Parts: sequence; C-alpha cells; structure tokens
Amino acid sequence: MRRAQRIAAITGMLVEKPHHVFDVGDFAELFGVARSTLSEDLSIIRSTFEDLGMGKVETIAGAVGGVRYLPDLSSEQILAQIEGICERLREPDRILPGGFVYTDDLILSPQLLRIVGHIFSTKFSQYEPQYVATVETAGIPVALSTARSLNVPLVVVRRQSKPTEGPVLTMNFVSGSANQVETMSLSRRALPTGSRVLLIDDFMKAGGTLRGLINLMDEFECTVVGTGVLIETGWPEKKLIDDYLSLIYLQEVNVEEEKVIVRPADWITA
Amino acid sequence: MRRAQRIAAITGMLVEKPHHVFDVGDFAELFGVARSTLSEDLSIIRSTFEDLGMGKVETIAGAVGGVRYLPDLSSEQILAQIEGICERLREPDRILPGGFVYTDDLILSPQLLRIVGHIFSTKFSQYEPQYVATVETAGIPVALSTARSLNVPLVVVRRQSKPTEGPVLTMNFVSGSANQVETMSLSRRALPTGSRVLLIDDFMKAGGTLRGLINLMDEFECTVVGTGVLIETGWPEKKLIDDYLSLIYLQEVNVEEEKVIVRPADWITA
Repeated sequence: MRRAQRIAAITGMLVEKPHHVFDVGDFAELFGVARSTLSEDLSIIRSTFEDLGMGKVETIAGAVGGVRYLPDLSSEQILAQIEGICERLREPDRILPGGFVYTDDLILSPQLLRIVGHIFSTKFSQYEPQYVATVETAGIPVALSTARSLNVPLVVVRRQSKPTEGPVLTMNFVSGSANQVETMSLSRRALPTGSRVLLIDDFMKAGGTLRGLINLMDEFECTVVGTGVLIETGWPEKKLIDDYLSLIYLQEVNVEEEKVIVRPADWITA
Repeated sequence: MRRAQRIAAITGMLVEKPHHVFDVGDFAELFGVARSTLSEDLSIIRSTFEDLGMGKVETIAGAVGGVRYLPDLSSEQILAQIEGICERLREPDRILPGGFVYTDDLILSPQLLRIVGHIFSTKFSQYEPQYVATVETAGIPVALSTARSLNVPLVVVRRQSKPTEGPVLTMNFVSGSANQVETMSLSRRALPTGSRVLLIDDFMKAGGTLRGLINLMDEFECTVVGTGVLIETGWPEKKLIDDYLSLIYLQEVNVEEEKVIVRPADWITA
C-alpha cells in the first residue's frame, strides 16, 4: 500500500471511533510497513487536522505505542456552532402556548447532536469519565452523542423501573421547578461501584433532576466528574446544583412580543 | 497541500458525516487544485475503503458533482458482528427473574450502537428515508444511531405528551403481548405530511407497539419505507406486523438450564 492509501485507511478508522486507542504496531502489521513510516503517516494526518481545525490526533507513548483521534473543537468553533443554534432558537414560531419553546427538531438532528457531543467531549474528556449518565427521555440523544464522542457507555436512569433491568435502586427526589416528589431508578448492574461518571441533560431549570442524579451516583458510590447541560434557563435564578457547564442560556420567552431571548453561555463568549 | 494531506482531510470529513453529499467543487476550492486532481484523490479513498471493507465512497454525477460516504457493511461483516452480539447475549448471568434477559449494557455501548446503525443504514438507505422514528424509551439509542448513519433527523414518539411539544396527535393502541390499551403521542410539527419514514425499535415481541407506530404514521400521512428491529423474540409466534427486518432472533430463555437460545436472523445466515 502506498502512503496515500494508508492515510485514507488510518484516517477513516480514527475518525470512525473517536477516543479509541489504536495500536500503532497493529497498523504496521496491517500495512506491512515499518513503524517509522507509520509515524510519518500519522504526523501528516495530525498536522492536516490541526491546520483545518478538524480535531486532534494524539500519539500515546509507551511500550506499545498508540494513537487516537479526539474530536476537539476550538473556542472559536464552539462559539460559532452555539451561536448558530441560538439563532435557530430565536425563530418566533418556536414559541408555544405557556411560554414553552419547541426544540425537538434541533435536539433530534444528527448534525446538532454530533457537534454538541464533540463540545462536551472537548470540555470533559480531561476528567476521564468512564460512563455518561442521563435521565430519560429528552436527555438521551444529547447524552448518547456525548458518550459516542467520548467512546464510553451510556447509562439511562429511568422514571419507572422495568422488569428487564433486574434489581434496581429506586430513589425519590424533589423536582426543583414543580416542587413535586418524583422517582428515579437505575439497575444495580448498570454502573460498577467506583466509576467516574459524566452527567448530561438537555435542559435545566432549577436543577432538581440533576441534583437527584448526583445523589443517585452517591448511592452507587460513583464519582461525578462533571455535569453538562445543553440549555439552561434564566429562571429560577437560584439553582439547586453549583458545578455545571451549560452551552446555551435561555434568558426569557416573551410570548407577547414573540421573542426568545437566548445567548451562548458566558464561558463561551468570554 | 499535497495529496497525502488532501486525502487525510477529505477522508476525515466524509467519515464524520455519513450520507452527507459534499460538493467536489468546494473541495477543489478549499485545496486549490483542479477537479481532475480531486477525482484521483477520491478514487484512491474509494478503492482503499473497498479493499479494506470500510464502506463505500460514492461519487454522484451531475452539474455540480458530489461525493458521499456510505457506512455499508458486507454480508460477512454483518454476520460476524451479529454473531458477536449473540455470543454476548448467551452469557448465563444475563438471565433475570421472570425469564428476562439483561441487555442494557449492550444496547447502550457506543461500539454496538455504531455497528447496528450502520447495518440498518446498509439495508434501508436504498428506500431513502427522510426520518427515523421510534417510541420512547429503550428504542431511542438504536434509532438515533441509525438516524446518524443515514444522516436524517430522529422522531421520538412519546407515551405521554409534554407541554414543550405543542399540539400533539394522541392515539390509543393495543400492546400485543400484554393486550392492554396504551397511548402514544407525537407533536404535530415533528413530522411533515408526506414524509418517508423508517421505523426502528430495540425489541419486538408481538409487534403491538410497531403496529401502533405504523397506524400513527398513517395519521400523519407519512409513508413507512421500512421497519427495523434489533431483537425479535420467538414468542408469540404470530406477529401483528408482516414486513420488518430483525437482526437477532431470541428463541427462548430457559431459566432452569440457565440458557439463552439466540441466533442471528435467518436473512443474515442464509
């Protein structure tokens, strides 16, 4: 195989599985070339991706030697992408009776989900999560996309347990906005004790659900290494959790003037 | 940019967005080379992917000229992958009280989901679905992965409607296995009239939910272009829908002998 062909093959494998560590020795064997030749191939891919802002190609030193692709976005790329989503959210015909905003078409589009997954991966991969957890239902697509970008399994906490889950741990929690007692449950075998978990949800008002999820992780003796939220609302001002990263700040839905007042989170524009 | 660099860049973009049609003219402009040079680049990528079984790179003729990546798997690859999942399903400690099989760790793993999405894309892309639809909750990860492989939006039908969905169409249906009347609902704006829709679910016993989903698509005046199911059970023998493609056939869960009797669907081994 010539260089151009090796580069096509290796690039395809790397991008298809973000965060997966490939053994450089396996590549050398597959293509029948020396490691030094492969190092040159990899450095061409790395510098091309860097020049075009297509993410990072990282070589991992060690006895074996590995390489992986991180779908990281630059600060400018994150700002541009999130500003683009905010612009869509400002479309007046999204406003629903009761001051709700219709977002399903956005949070179920593969393009948006891919980007949002990559952004959360960019911000949280340094904390080395082993699982991404969310509460059903609306958070699942964003959480799964993040899990895919990070190459770790997803854990879905349920509102009601199902017989196909085996023994479950069930917990009551107080939803922040409605101030109601609700229930969440998770299969005992879904999450090993001591795991490092990243929490992801699509929407946060007071943060009651996420606070419940944090308590549930305590019960599983797991460490929460981060909390990511796609859209945070400006109301209520006081949140029930302290430490989280949101991407979009939904300040107000003005039904009379038909205006959705929304902007990228402060850390993005800072 | 030299050829090796162009190939790294183009391959990365193609694989990152399966089924997305890239304009060859845009590539020519980005890299500052003639279209004929780009044609050679693309034919190197295409033949390399073909040789290594990494999917198809398809050039689309026409005034503009486009290129896209299809994550298609060969029959042998599908068999090997599905046989691998069946092997995991046969692990005796998956058997739960009541003869249920624990599958959450499998259907929430990014590796499995990526492959299953690619398999459904391989089988259904020829019918040109514009949406992938599923019913919450367990079907969402498989359906989203399929939507991502096909590069079309996901539609999630809910058991209970939420105020953030706007006007919804709600429908009763009879679940096949429990023979109970249940409810499903979908936002009026989730799906335009006349859309071509692919239905995807993780699990099918009698098929009552999928039959309900087919009826719901009728109400939306949409065309069901295919129905895909990850795991189909051998019981009940009579299914409520005719035309579907399952990947795995779960024949029996023998609790006493601690055996899960499962195999790839017939079309895969034929």
